[in-house]
Amino acid sequence: MTSAEIITIGTEILLGEIVDTNTRYIARTLRSMGVDLYRTITIGDNVDRIASAISHSLERADFVITTGGLGPTIDDPTREAVAKAVGLQTEFREDLWEQVVETISRYGRTPSENQKRQAYVPQGAIGVRNPVGTAPCFIVEKQISGKTHAIISLPGVPNEMEHVLHESVIPYLQKTFCLDEIIKVRVIHCSGLGEGMIDEKIADLETLSNPTVGLAAHTGVVDVRITAKAKTEAEADALIAQVEA
Amino acid sequence: MTSAEIITIGTEILLGEIVDTNTRYIARTLRSMGVDLYRTITIGDNVDRIASAISHSLERADFVITTGGLGPTIDDPTREAVAKAVGLQTEFREDLWEQVVETISRYGRTPSENQKRQAYVPQGAIGVRNPVGTAPCFIVEKQISGKTHAIISLPGVPNEMEHVLHESVIPYLQKTFCLDEIIKVRVIHCSGLGEGMIDEKIADLETLSNPTVGLAAHTGVVDVRITAKAKTEAEADALIAQVEA
Repeated sequence: MTSAEIITIGTEILLGEIVDTNTRYIARTLRSMGVDLYRTITIGDNVDRIASAISHSLERADFVITTGGLGPTIDDPTREAVAKAVGLQTEFREDLWEQVVETISRYGRTPSENQKRQAYVPQGAIGVRNPVGTAPCFIVEKQISGKTHAIISLPGVPNEMEHVLHESVIPYLQKTFCLDEIIKVRVIHCSGLGEGMIDEKIADLETLSNPTVGLAAHTGVVDVRITAKAKTEAEADALIAQVEA
Repeated sequence: MTSAEIITIGTEILLGEIVDTNTRYIARTLRSMGVDLYRTITIGDNVDRIASAISHSLERADFVITTGGLGPTIDDPTREAVAKAVGLQTEFREDLWEQVVETISRYGRTPSENQKRQAYVPQGAIGVRNPVGTAPCFIVEKQISGKTHAIISLPGVPNEMEHVLHESVIPYLQKTFCLDEIIKVRVIHCSGLGEGMIDEKIADLETLSNPTVGLAAHTGVVDVRITAKAKTEAEADALIAQVEA
């Protein structure tokens, strides 16, 4: 089973100023591809802390997706942090610079000198086109115990992130990690019974491994969540139907 | 400076089913108390993974706040995970059990046997009253290099979390970590100039340490964020005014 972690980069999120919607979007996308997501992290604009988080995530998961921190300013730390996490320098990439110039010229502007920062990526990174914004994206691969692991760095601006995710990242992941499973979830909302009472009734189901059955309490409602992994949607539906019966 | 990390517990968040609003609420609360928040983590319902995350967070930060995973069911892993993170067992606490019984009887119910799980907390934990829900909360202190570090475990249901945070956790933090600073943030929204151009104009400001100045690009708008730490709101305002001028 392929596993992933998501790292959201930006002090503004830790300050509670903006709500990170990217993590949820990527989480749902990964789930529909059958990828296990074990952990998501949000971290401020600090190269060392981000590098350390990425390097630990990469030890645990097959791939790591980062969002944010790809802008042109000195407080945009992702390029340096990814390089540091895998022990590489960054390098100026003419092809990525051409993309930046092209995108900015579409807005009728000429790029400022500091915008060149956006064309620096970790040495040997796979450049990923971002046709809807100025920040080029990139993928860094690292072999760990003979297996390919990857760090995929996407912009923080949601429409840019989503575009690049669908256009380039999903095909890359399907190919690199041979993804051919899906995860399907059914949620049954229960009211009138407490979480404890429902748990007593379905305790045996909660020990299953596929599908898994879990409970989540909200105000006045308890959700029973049935999660199935399978090769096809029909197979997943069949697994869920067995438990529902 | 006191530092914190937040760990949100719940597979349903990693599956993208519910949006975690607790992290942002706690982040803003900590910011107003002058606490540095370096990292937030979301992790699924797995005791070992949560225990490992807590133990790493506790090495980096003065205290860790967890939310979620305190319900009565076998997939509510926080009590065991916190105990494991600090190398303790859980113990049944009569006083916490009485709270559970009392809360449930207010709903006109008698607690089910599995609800007893909610009265097990790590050995020696400080029990924290939750008058708005059935899940007792708790604080575990650990001395690291002669300094008190703490793990504070709160419910995932937002109104319960917020109540306990204000009622018990803030007073505990102020006393234990002698908190007497505040953090104030001013955000200036700029449109018509790209992030790169603004960055060139204010690059010198972005190297300040107090207040700090950061940029964040959204679609069509760039935010300039000025963040000041001070003992009083007036002092913080004065620091921000210097930069704005």
